[in-house]
Amino acid sequence: MPMPSANHHSKPGTALSPAQDAAVRASFARQGLMHHWGASLTALEHGAAEVRLPHSERVTQQQGSFHGGAMGALADIAGGYAAMTVAPDGMEVTTVEYKINFLAACAGGELVARGSVIRAGKRIIVTTADVFHRDADGHETHCATMQQTIVPVPKTY
Amino acid sequence: MPMPSANHHSKPGTALSPAQDAAVRASFARQGLMHHWGASLTALEHGAAEVRLPHSERVTQQQGSFHGGAMGALADIAGGYAAMTVAPDGMEVTTVEYKINFLAACAGGELVARGSVIRAGKRIIVTTADVFHRDADGHETHCATMQQTIVPVPKTY
Amino acid sequence: MPMPSANHHSKPGTALSPAQDAAVRASFARQGLMHHWGASLTALEHGAAEVRLPHSERVTQQQGSFHGGAMGALADIAGGYAAMTVAPDGMEVTTVEYKINFLAACAGGELVARGSVIRAGKRIIVTTADVFHRDADGHETHCATMQQTIVPVPKTY
Amino acid sequence: MPMPSANHHSKPGTALSPAQDAAVRASFARQGLMHHWGASLTALEHGAAEVRLPHSERVTQQQGSFHGGAMGALADIAGGYAAMTVAPDGMEVTTVEYKINFLAACAGGELVARGSVIRAGKRIIVTTADVFHRDADGHETHCATMQQTIVPVPKTY
Repeated sequence: MPMPSANHHSKPGTALSPAQDAAVRASFARQGLMHHWGASLTALEHGAAEVRLPHSERVTQQQGSFHGGAMGALADIAGGYAAMTVAPDGMEVTTVEYKINFLAACAGGELVARGSVIRAGKRIIVTTADVFHRDADGHETHCATMQQTIVPVPKTY
Repeated sequence: MPMPSANHHSKPGTALSPAQDAAVRASFARQGLMHHWGASLTALEHGAAEVRLPHSERVTQQQGSFHGGAMGALADIAGGYAAMTVAPDGMEVTTVEYKINFLAACAGGELVARGSVIRAGKRIIVTTADVFHRDADGHETHCATMQQTIVPVPKTY
Repeated sequence: MPMPSANHHSKPGTALSPAQDAAVRASFARQGLMHHWGASLTALEHGAAEVRLPHSERVTQQQGSFHGGAMGALADIAGGYAAMTVAPDGMEVTTVEYKINFLAACAGGELVARGSVIRAGKRIIVTTADVFHRDADGHETHCATMQQTIVPVPKTY
Repeated sequence: MPMPSANHHSKPGTALSPAQDAAVRASFARQGLMHHWGASLTALEHGAAEVRLPHSERVTQQQGSFHGGAMGALADIAGGYAAMTVAPDGMEVTTVEYKINFLAACAGGELVARGSVIRAGKRIIVTTADVFHRDADGHETHCATMQQTIVPVPKTY
């Protein structure tokens, strides 16, 4: 029972309008979770977003590595803001569900989550995000991969 | 291509041995993420675990509600420790993947995540966890439901 | 980024109206896949549906057991028709996504998939389905568990 | 709680040994589900597999399009055989779980599912598969995207 075809698609690589860019950044800045972790929104374009999370005791599991739940939250954010760039003007987005597979344990350095839109429907937006670990030398390891369903919702703040 | 049948099953409701109970609590206490959030492990028995997370600015999204990523991390923890109670003695567990659906937005009060084991195989443990919001009057709302795959791994600390 | 709260919930155990019951059965009867497999819709109430699939060469994998993909399709159907019972009158439903964990391999006998609605929102319906194997003696084994996202859509036939 | 790092990785694009190629094709040929649908294994290399399914009444849903459950089964197969190409010699594989998002409804023509390995661990193999609809003119539409967890298992036939 698949979905009806989409009416429009994302155009990855296109810059956002200043208003869209500001709306996403304002939303990100309001997230207590991201603020308390010291995460930052490091890239943003039509259909794509990148978020970074430095390693700290705030995000570790029992062996000192990045917690899988922190990777999941970061991937959720990256996919969600990628989706927001293709949502109708003035709309926020909300996550319906996500699924994440963990590929490697990583400690130190930082996590980089890159989200991108697979399908931009009017009612449903489907995204993926990949989480990479980046060590002090800039070497990246693929840590996790996520698939996510998003819906546009009216902004309420 | 389904999995071969399990050789043993969880017996929900059975108390853990003091050694098992201590091992799970020691693992939880080592998680920087849970400590930073002020989360606590509030119930533990064979095949089941409950974790609570008070509302604070550390776990909010842009509208002041609990962040979906925080719900996901809490569900991951509840399912993971439920799995650890059925893993072979002396083993830790690690999350292979999880999938979470969000059912309601919730602010204030606390989140209660209850994980339980569906299948305890030698190589693969399958769990579910449900996340409830609990307000000041003790009223519970179902916020999220998760399905998770876990593997036992040697303890390395 | 969780979803806004639902406005109504399913009332499992309530009988469907004759019109609703007929609409679901008419939709099922139109599914070539179910017909080809000899599957049948064996129970239907508000928020719940049960579908059965007899073992045959049409649904096996390389070792003669039920194919995981067949279990997935059966679970998708059971969850989807459970959702259709709570959709607005005259609406069909379509699957946005599902995730299924396999718990045991099973051959012979029949599969019984039982779907039920977890959250019946206006825009998004969340369901679960469990797949059991039933042998000649009526003994049931839990084979698979699924979590699913559904949207109501206009009926086009 | 992420997984320990993988010890080896897939080398997409490398041809299989004749023995590996024959083992995958023999396994596929034994699948009653694929045989009765008229599906075929159309490409195979180290870490990747392609499977095709022609449209017929055997695989339709209530509106005459390809059934989502059939797309799911096809994606499961494509990901599973991609995984088998990186499993240790003489091993079969079994699906632990998969999650699929549907992107478009498609009728007529054929479905092409392309699976590839994301992480080839000793104990856990993670794959993705994308399902495309191919019409009579060779035009492809992206219908579904899947994420999957696989384990190697001893061959029992």
